[in-house]
Amino acid sequence: MIATKAFATPAPDADLAPFQIERRNPGPHDVQIEILYCGVCHSDIHQARNEWGNSIYPMVPGHEIVGRVTAIGDHVKNFKVGELAGVGCIVDSCRTCSQCSAGEEQYCENGMTGTYNSIGKDGLPTYGGYSTQVVVDEKYTLHVSEKLDLKGVAPLLCAGITTYSPLRHWKVSKGQQVAIVGLGGLGHMGVKLAAAMGAEVTVLSTSDSKEADSKRLGATHFVNTKKEGSMDALKNRFDFILNTVSAPNSYDQFLPLLKTDGAMVLVGAPPEPSAITGFNLIMQRRTIAGSLIGGIRETQEMLDFCAEHNITSDVEIIPMSQINEAYDRIMKGDVKYRFVIDIASLKD
Amino acid sequence: MIATKAFATPAPDADLAPFQIERRNPGPHDVQIEILYCGVCHSDIHQARNEWGNSIYPMVPGHEIVGRVTAIGDHVKNFKVGELAGVGCIVDSCRTCSQCSAGEEQYCENGMTGTYNSIGKDGLPTYGGYSTQVVVDEKYTLHVSEKLDLKGVAPLLCAGITTYSPLRHWKVSKGQQVAIVGLGGLGHMGVKLAAAMGAEVTVLSTSDSKEADSKRLGATHFVNTKKEGSMDALKNRFDFILNTVSAPNSYDQFLPLLKTDGAMVLVGAPPEPSAITGFNLIMQRRTIAGSLIGGIRETQEMLDFCAEHNITSDVEIIPMSQINEAYDRIMKGDVKYRFVIDIASLKD
Repeated sequence: MIATKAFATPAPDADLAPFQIERRNPGPHDVQIEILYCGVCHSDIHQARNEWGNSIYPMVPGHEIVGRVTAIGDHVKNFKVGELAGVGCIVDSCRTCSQCSAGEEQYCENGMTGTYNSIGKDGLPTYGGYSTQVVVDEKYTLHVSEKLDLKGVAPLLCAGITTYSPLRHWKVSKGQQVAIVGLGGLGHMGVKLAAAMGAEVTVLSTSDSKEADSKRLGATHFVNTKKEGSMDALKNRFDFILNTVSAPNSYDQFLPLLKTDGAMVLVGAPPEPSAITGFNLIMQRRTIAGSLIGGIRETQEMLDFCAEHNITSDVEIIPMSQINEAYDRIMKGDVKYRFVIDIASLKD
Repeated sequence: MIATKAFATPAPDADLAPFQIERRNPGPHDVQIEILYCGVCHSDIHQARNEWGNSIYPMVPGHEIVGRVTAIGDHVKNFKVGELAGVGCIVDSCRTCSQCSAGEEQYCENGMTGTYNSIGKDGLPTYGGYSTQVVVDEKYTLHVSEKLDLKGVAPLLCAGITTYSPLRHWKVSKGQQVAIVGLGGLGHMGVKLAAAMGAEVTVLSTSDSKEADSKRLGATHFVNTKKEGSMDALKNRFDFILNTVSAPNSYDQFLPLLKTDGAMVLVGAPPEPSAITGFNLIMQRRTIAGSLIGGIRETQEMLDFCAEHNITSDVEIIPMSQINEAYDRIMKGDVKYRFVIDIASLKD
């Protein structure tokens, strides 16, 4: 076993603090990665605080992991020592169900193994990227381009794929009208990706302070949805709406903005239900759907797309010691647009 | 102009009563039809009573019309005098927008002209099938097979196409698991059509009294959704759920019953919004959508499909004079499964 420094939380109401974990020795198909950066996802907070009711403690969060390969198992074919590598939200799945066979491991019928807060096939809890190294089967390990600034790549592993997957699944393409609801960690990636796919992007936000950044990130239009009449002017306008808001919001207010056969897809998950009016769906055959991260193959496709289009996340780098303060700032929406932990700060 | 006997309502709170209307003389592209039967749709009641807030009075309801061609305009190519013909919910549309060009006139961007309670291009209100004859452009007139019992064909023009269109649009096919929520005018057609398409059909109802009919109509399974634990047992089961209920119902309770990428489509429109939980959509990339009747081309396809599979609606025939009583019985759910007016009773 490999002794590994980490930060963990022992309970829902505790701060994160130094903790030692053990990683398995690399098996024949495993890749051992020295972690360089790990993004801080809002779902890290939900799970650290047991807000989804399924937390396992002690918990080492983090599923936006980039680093460098330090060892490989005998049968590893696709990675070499010294290469960059990434790990997202999934480190294993059943590999045999129809979803796994289709490359949609996130919907594994037997339950995928999350990078943290899951129980692996060895019966042990998984620990995430707030740590100095990780050992992962190469099937669930991603290639990372040397071209991009590595700090901004980490958040692609969750925020990137979570927004890329629905844009692709619903076939967003050149010339389409796309709205991104909310400009946070997910939303700012949605703007960059949809614009790179050729869509004309509108950011829908409740705060005028997001307008300048929206345009800088690639949006053509910005609409403050609280402004009187602003929503009426957008009726029947969008082919696709990506709703990234995880605070309670009215789905119903956005549905009339969709064209016939348009879809609004939720990637933020507010804890409270939201009411929808059947007529808003029926009259134009509109759709509301949800989407969960993305499969391994599609995550690689997204990373390659980002390398080709020079897309990374806008990040603020923090040392591991500032993680609890970062959580508080995320809760206040005070980050542009993703905290990324410099894991070197954990090695000292 | 052609003097035509009809039944109309003069106001939201009035009964329907005899009324005389005038039909236009057939223009070059028009078909004049002697109406034989007209189905009674729940939306007739909504509109007669101005429950959707857009009613024009006096109103002659009825958009499930079958009859026989009695005259044709000089340029009519596809109909001959003496043939059977049908008219559904749409008698005109702009014919030029992208939706009309795609044969989806029900979503006409400039607003389709409804068979009744609309203003036609001539500036006059349209009057529906509670009348002895109707004059309609041949583009919006359907061919009706002589093979089927005509009484049971009338409801296909609305209840049939309203359920057929989403089953086709969402590609319901052989071997799929399909649920029909509610066994009324729409639901009983949904069961027949989905079963004819090769799906294994489950009826979800709140009343055990619907079980025997569900099986007779083609369902393999029946589940009383009020029974403790009945919904839990259906988790992740269905490829497609057709929700035909127009009374308030919880959409959220049905979403967990869908497989990954499954869709629930609403064709009943409860007046009240219904709450949905984002997680129920996100975790399996599930969809909730709506669907409105169907286009003219697809309506013809549906009528041909029904002729091929010997499908008609289960009906109770009434004389025109019993229409007000029929409305009251519909409101109580006391009809199996559609009232159809024998228009001969109006001619006397």
